[in-house]
Amino acid sequence: MNVAVIGATGYTGLEVVRLLMQHPELNVTAVTSDSQAGAMLTEVYPHLQGLVHDPLQRADALELAAQADLAFLALPSGLSTALVPDLLAAGLKVIDLAGDHRLSQADYAEWYHKTPPTHEVLNQAIYGLPEFYAAEIAPARLIANPGCYPTATLLSLLPLVQHGLIDTESLIVDAKSGVSGAGKALSPGTHFAEINENFKAYKVGVHQHIPEIEGVLTKQHGAKVTLSFTTHLVPMTRGIMATSYAKLTQDLSTEEVLAIYKETYQNQPFVRIRANGSMPATKDVSASNFCDIGLRVDPRTSRVTVIGVIDNLIKGAAGQAIQNANLLCGLPQTTGLLHAPVYL
Amino acid sequence: MNVAVIGATGYTGLEVVRLLMQHPELNVTAVTSDSQAGAMLTEVYPHLQGLVHDPLQRADALELAAQADLAFLALPSGLSTALVPDLLAAGLKVIDLAGDHRLSQADYAEWYHKTPPTHEVLNQAIYGLPEFYAAEIAPARLIANPGCYPTATLLSLLPLVQHGLIDTESLIVDAKSGVSGAGKALSPGTHFAEINENFKAYKVGVHQHIPEIEGVLTKQHGAKVTLSFTTHLVPMTRGIMATSYAKLTQDLSTEEVLAIYKETYQNQPFVRIRANGSMPATKDVSASNFCDIGLRVDPRTSRVTVIGVIDNLIKGAAGQAIQNANLLCGLPQTTGLLHAPVYL
Amino acid sequence: MNVAVIGATGYTGLEVVRLLMQHPELNVTAVTSDSQAGAMLTEVYPHLQGLVHDPLQRADALELAAQADLAFLALPSGLSTALVPDLLAAGLKVIDLAGDHRLSQADYAEWYHKTPPTHEVLNQAIYGLPEFYAAEIAPARLIANPGCYPTATLLSLLPLVQHGLIDTESLIVDAKSGVSGAGKALSPGTHFAEINENFKAYKVGVHQHIPEIEGVLTKQHGAKVTLSFTTHLVPMTRGIMATSYAKLTQDLSTEEVLAIYKETYQNQPFVRIRANGSMPATKDVSASNFCDIGLRVDPRTSRVTVIGVIDNLIKGAAGQAIQNANLLCGLPQTTGLLHAPVYL
Amino acid sequence: MNVAVIGATGYTGLEVVRLLMQHPELNVTAVTSDSQAGAMLTEVYPHLQGLVHDPLQRADALELAAQADLAFLALPSGLSTALVPDLLAAGLKVIDLAGDHRLSQADYAEWYHKTPPTHEVLNQAIYGLPEFYAAEIAPARLIANPGCYPTATLLSLLPLVQHGLIDTESLIVDAKSGVSGAGKALSPGTHFAEINENFKAYKVGVHQHIPEIEGVLTKQHGAKVTLSFTTHLVPMTRGIMATSYAKLTQDLSTEEVLAIYKETYQNQPFVRIRANGSMPATKDVSASNFCDIGLRVDPRTSRVTVIGVIDNLIKGAAGQAIQNANLLCGLPQTTGLLHAPVYL
Repeated sequence: MNVAVIGATGYTGLEVVRLLMQHPELNVTAVTSDSQAGAMLTEVYPHLQGLVHDPLQRADALELAAQADLAFLALPSGLSTALVPDLLAAGLKVIDLAGDHRLSQADYAEWYHKTPPTHEVLNQAIYGLPEFYAAEIAPARLIANPGCYPTATLLSLLPLVQHGLIDTESLIVDAKSGVSGAGKALSPGTHFAEINENFKAYKVGVHQHIPEIEGVLTKQHGAKVTLSFTTHLVPMTRGIMATSYAKLTQDLSTEEVLAIYKETYQNQPFVRIRANGSMPATKDVSASNFCDIGLRVDPRTSRVTVIGVIDNLIKGAAGQAIQNANLLCGLPQTTGLLHAPVYL
Repeated sequence: MNVAVIGATGYTGLEVVRLLMQHPELNVTAVTSDSQAGAMLTEVYPHLQGLVHDPLQRADALELAAQADLAFLALPSGLSTALVPDLLAAGLKVIDLAGDHRLSQADYAEWYHKTPPTHEVLNQAIYGLPEFYAAEIAPARLIANPGCYPTATLLSLLPLVQHGLIDTESLIVDAKSGVSGAGKALSPGTHFAEINENFKAYKVGVHQHIPEIEGVLTKQHGAKVTLSFTTHLVPMTRGIMATSYAKLTQDLSTEEVLAIYKETYQNQPFVRIRANGSMPATKDVSASNFCDIGLRVDPRTSRVTVIGVIDNLIKGAAGQAIQNANLLCGLPQTTGLLHAPVYL
Repeated sequence: MNVAVIGATGYTGLEVVRLLMQHPELNVTAVTSDSQAGAMLTEVYPHLQGLVHDPLQRADALELAAQADLAFLALPSGLSTALVPDLLAAGLKVIDLAGDHRLSQADYAEWYHKTPPTHEVLNQAIYGLPEFYAAEIAPARLIANPGCYPTATLLSLLPLVQHGLIDTESLIVDAKSGVSGAGKALSPGTHFAEINENFKAYKVGVHQHIPEIEGVLTKQHGAKVTLSFTTHLVPMTRGIMATSYAKLTQDLSTEEVLAIYKETYQNQPFVRIRANGSMPATKDVSASNFCDIGLRVDPRTSRVTVIGVIDNLIKGAAGQAIQNANLLCGLPQTTGLLHAPVYL
Repeated sequence: MNVAVIGATGYTGLEVVRLLMQHPELNVTAVTSDSQAGAMLTEVYPHLQGLVHDPLQRADALELAAQADLAFLALPSGLSTALVPDLLAAGLKVIDLAGDHRLSQADYAEWYHKTPPTHEVLNQAIYGLPEFYAAEIAPARLIANPGCYPTATLLSLLPLVQHGLIDTESLIVDAKSGVSGAGKALSPGTHFAEINENFKAYKVGVHQHIPEIEGVLTKQHGAKVTLSFTTHLVPMTRGIMATSYAKLTQDLSTEEVLAIYKETYQNQPFVRIRANGSMPATKDVSASNFCDIGLRVDPRTSRVTVIGVIDNLIKGAAGQAIQNANLLCGLPQTTGLLHAPVYL
């Protein structure tokens, strides 16, 4: 199957390209960058010398439709909204890695401060969290690929919410991300000398991923879920950890809760549950598509603390997009994706 | 005034020595290391060449009492318990940077898994958090210098607890520390290749600083406070951030809560409250004795999120010890301590 | 083909295991660790959960010969010497990643301060730098896999030496390595708080890789080559850069020297030569088997500066070992190895 | 004495401000930033809250002359040239931290690609390396504060050159710097995700500090010195190491060369010579004004390898500027500058 990567010079686009090099069924036939069209991708990224031979082209829907059947859309929020209708009209299936198609129009307008996609387009969009929505994803034409924080948070919390084990009013998520999540755009907040050896909170309580998380939790819970969500920047490149806290509504041991997680994810190849007493670190999933989850019930407070980690660029973006592409193409989810984490 | 630094080759002892070099009133007359007695401190730490000329000696209470009036005790937990009675008997005032004298006997035995100090010694120990206990500290002979996590957490939460503004049942603290907090002892968990570019949780819900925090909060609250407390390791050397969450019991705005913090700390030279909309990062206090605090009331959840940062080795250890020494000596708290943070 | 990984819990052994997971022809049938025999590899490295199912066994030559045809030997120097005769006698082909079989007996004794292998064994050992010795490697039974610094240095310098373009008396190599090169053993020099945000030189002029480099250069030059070689530690996990300096014996431009490099390596899939004006960084080859080389002739000094980078754990160890295994097995060198660098 | 800091929001300006807070004799009465005039310095740098109370003003020479006697000029190259004549005319003494007044007109034009200062101004400029030019500095009105690389390199090499111990034709300097040397301006080369865990060379053989180093060496040697000089970027914030190589012209031992260094620097409070067998690391001088030097004579090659380290922002910029200011004001060089390195 031929695929196009739109926005191939951004960090998530770059990871899509890299991962697809090892994919046995998906073949990259077009890479785009409006700002650097005409250059070779290897001019922008010399580390790809000898591996990629494609010139960067403009993202023209009709041209892309002549070259590919599926498009990975790795553009900043807002640009997806503008491009998706043309891509769909041209007959391409689309996996959108931006946030544009994950929210209701009202939420998107409120949290992204931008004009949302039309109802017509949004109605076609399926939220691409394969562990919970594989059946809906497979026949879809437009996938809203989940955000990095939502992926780590939802995989950490959905088993509890689905089974009604927690007081959803008590939910607090303290999330930490490596700096690559901020992308390639220069800013004082990603300037080496300011972020190195520094740990900081940002967008406290107002991060645009909040409504995405709440939306999915609400859908599974059956009633409105509102959570406290704080994002922090870790002086490292890759990795997200979501540390989640919730009051249990039943008297359960750590072992009992772990059993529920293991059962929930028993057929999900990319979610790994830690043994009792062991907690995952971000390096445990680095450069892989895994989400590792550990948890502990604290008898002193009757709270469960759940720790979920992903690589923000892989399971939090490019890897999950390919996992969705595999579903769209009728391939096993793991096709071309089962790399061991690069621990060191 | 002549002072001794016991355990001068550990990280906190080293910082006490460094800070005292710039202190106009406290004069280091003895540095000890039982394991390296006889060597010069500069043999262990060549970066002190030309600045320190003291040989390392064994920690003998009588000898130290002949050399100094006050001892900074920077030994691992357990060793303090053994040494403090002799130091006090020899007439020295003692500031203990270990955790031995901060807890009740029962709590110490439970959380540190070691034999606690005697009641007689514990009864003399004053908890050395100057922002709240300066009056008790000044005349004391034995100071239990607070732990790094407790300092950041208590300065973040005490204004809320004192004013009865939060539901203490709802308290959750998500804390993050640089690696220097683990000290100089080698372990796989502080091996560069394992911790670099990695973010991990450790001692989830069982960290020995929990009873210290709960003890002080309980004392101020007047009823037992139990909190969820999770510690994480950040791939950086210095700095602690405590991100605290609590339900407000009253309808207060961010501005109103900030006003209470500003009032609480108006005469405290080392606590700085951020303006509304601004949150501190760990680098903002690096290599300084400051604790910077920012906060936000989330109208969606009626929770307040408080973010407090300190340098774990300074306000979280050596700097606070000197602040306590200043009080013991009748000096202004800021004497020799008002260094600007090293932001870069 | 079935292979054993001896010393699978060290960093290079771990990388061999990881890379072989993606190898289509080499099948890991045994992993050993004398110190942790009986445990599962995933107990030591939880990030491999679900991917590896082998128990760690003791390194018994006869047992291994029953399980595999080829052994990767990833043990500390000295242990290889002891084990290799038994492995060869049991019929296994051996790729030794340690330094034991790279030097003459005299050099090994002088620089490693250990007892060297016997002449009988050394005579069978082929130096496994495939770019120059592929023909000798293919039929061999014992491969001395090159060291990390020698790989970067030799690939940087051999084109100049082979063509007689430099005054070998003038050779200076200033080398820098990430910390993973020091392995898994704990030491103050790899303790996070001491190495983080620090840059230091070590083993100045006495590094054990010096005779290995000089030996190969001498062989190619036809006369004794002696060089100044300084090693530095960079506060990062992966990567080596060798910055080499030499006086040109002819008046050549940067373009002309680049042309010689491109010709030398035109059929070598893992060596990439940069365009004039571009220099490689260590991230350009991270987690890949590539060696990237850039250079510049300085008309002011008539010297050429050559900059070569590799991933010390891949092309400098595990990747090159697999490249050698491919040759031993009659496979294309690139089999299972042509991963794109993980740039971010 | 009242001083002005021109360009107080750049990294070196910020360090001048920080260091002057602890200076007993120099009083900051004006801080300037043309781009942020009107704002408080603490708005740009909240870590200075409570410590600095100055508003940022425009750099007007006459106004500054009414406020101060001495100006630290911490502007990008080119801007100093424009401003210095007015500052001198207004009666201010000037310490210029930029490169504008360190070179001949021809060299400045060639290496900085900018219009140089006039002869009239250049003739007044004294090169501010106090260890060698204190006598000329004291009565001067305009100090060209040395660059960071030149400081580390010159202090490493001048004892050898002054005593005629090396073949200056053989000089090679391999230099490495932390990222703060690149300043506050955003660029892809200082974007966290690109520089973190990366080591790279830049400006190979064409760095603008080359003529500055060669100029001073030539002056001391009495004949033209040309060297190979390569600059690298280390993924850390602070610190420079210069690793220098030269052929000895005499048969000298490491001890003998060390003795010459110790004699050369015996009265220089900020240069520390390591014992035989010990090499300095960049952390050994972090946040201090020290330059630490270690060296080794290699009997195999008759070369000496000299390793010099400084904090690029202190001895390589702001600290040295204050050392020069002390000389200009008739104060001991160490006034307000003798801080111990922050090793951790």
